[in-house]
Amino acid sequence: MDNAIFGHRSIRKYKNQPIPDKILEYILEAASRASTTGNMQVYSIVVSTGAEIKKQLWESHFKQEMVKEAPVVLTFCADFNRFVKWCKMRDAQPGYDNFLSFMTAAIDALLAAQNAALAAEHKGLGICYLGTTTYMADKIIDILELPKYVVPITTLAVGYTNEDPGLTGRLPRRAIVHNEKYQDFSPEEIDSLYHDRENSAFTKELLKINDKATLAQIFTDNRYSKKDNVHFSQQLLEVLKKQGFMNNK
Amino acid sequence: MDNAIFGHRSIRKYKNQPIPDKILEYILEAASRASTTGNMQVYSIVVSTGAEIKKQLWESHFKQEMVKEAPVVLTFCADFNRFVKWCKMRDAQPGYDNFLSFMTAAIDALLAAQNAALAAEHKGLGICYLGTTTYMADKIIDILELPKYVVPITTLAVGYTNEDPGLTGRLPRRAIVHNEKYQDFSPEEIDSLYHDRENSAFTKELLKINDKATLAQIFTDNRYSKKDNVHFSQQLLEVLKKQGFMNNK
Repeated sequence: MDNAIFGHRSIRKYKNQPIPDKILEYILEAASRASTTGNMQVYSIVVSTGAEIKKQLWESHFKQEMVKEAPVVLTFCADFNRFVKWCKMRDAQPGYDNFLSFMTAAIDALLAAQNAALAAEHKGLGICYLGTTTYMADKIIDILELPKYVVPITTLAVGYTNEDPGLTGRLPRRAIVHNEKYQDFSPEEIDSLYHDRENSAFTKELLKINDKATLAQIFTDNRYSKKDNVHFSQQLLEVLKKQGFMNNK
Repeated sequence: MDNAIFGHRSIRKYKNQPIPDKILEYILEAASRASTTGNMQVYSIVVSTGAEIKKQLWESHFKQEMVKEAPVVLTFCADFNRFVKWCKMRDAQPGYDNFLSFMTAAIDALLAAQNAALAAEHKGLGICYLGTTTYMADKIIDILELPKYVVPITTLAVGYTNEDPGLTGRLPRRAIVHNEKYQDFSPEEIDSLYHDRENSAFTKELLKINDKATLAQIFTDNRYSKKDNVHFSQQLLEVLKKQGFMNNK
């Protein structure tokens, strides 16, 4: 447990080595034991291992090489499809075509994903989450043939690691933990929280390469820009509508 | 690891016994090691232990006794507040007031929550997720004084267990796992997936108590009704707007 949780690094280079069925089953079984709202299990996991389908997913995930390289790609979806089908067959009127139900199902999917990630790491495998899943949900829906009431939320690349990066530095814990109520940050506190990160050799190198004045600008201008975020927000809301989750009246 | 993942049960009765600081710190440190988008750490955890604040949270969480009983209540929030403040102080224009950014931050919060849950269970504590968090986000925002760009996503009750429930039965794994692409379910498959659950003694008792013809009706009519879902969908979308996450143009 400690090794999996406290030794986590995101792995972006994988060996060309398949994951034995037994280990993959262990990972999927671990995912299925996560908490799920009302034991409805309103999520699903698509396990992609074939070269052709991984190539299609790779295109969607901004051509990040690890999607092709990793032997297993797990797409975790918010999924009310099975549950709604069951309700209809049992003389029950499902009311799950709304935003709250989407969030409920997304929560299920993410708790299962983190169980899968830790189970894989516990078995000595490496993992990386692909944030591009929500950006490119529409394309992933086409590739994986996801029906109505199914939306991909996150993706895990899983495999034997072919690199050995160090742990990623985190902000001091007071940046994320609040006692009893939220304590908002003064400018001095923000300075103090980000001091070490902004003054690291790594950041200085990054600023030089990207020709930026501050680390924050690398996020706002290059990595997660307003333009991209607005574009993908519109696209994701369109996906929620198309997949049947925006009937909120 | 195996004990925490495969031994998970939701615990709803807790002993009146505080969690030692060292163990609470271990849980919070575990949460902070979860994957986070671009290492932005766009989430926060509010740790509530005081009787007065737990009472207020208990009111919001549909008066579920465990919120008062558990020594520690952890509220996990999607949180761009600190990051946006930092960007503004560093001559960078943040573009995180949109739906995609909300989802990014919610994903961060949920991966951290599941790390915390497993770390607590690894130390012999019990946990329960509170799905009421997204239903009552507006009230929780008031109680915990959450600023703009902060939305509560889920809550964990954590403490020493005062009950010993068995493992919750899950559907056969083919209900959630799909190979390569999504394989939609035929009516016969739905029957087969739900057969054991529908025919258990527990379900039969539940149908009698609730005077319902099918198990699905207990979900659609009692537990998660369309009326409630629509009401809380509207409320949650209103919260996203109010907290600054719906500027999608």
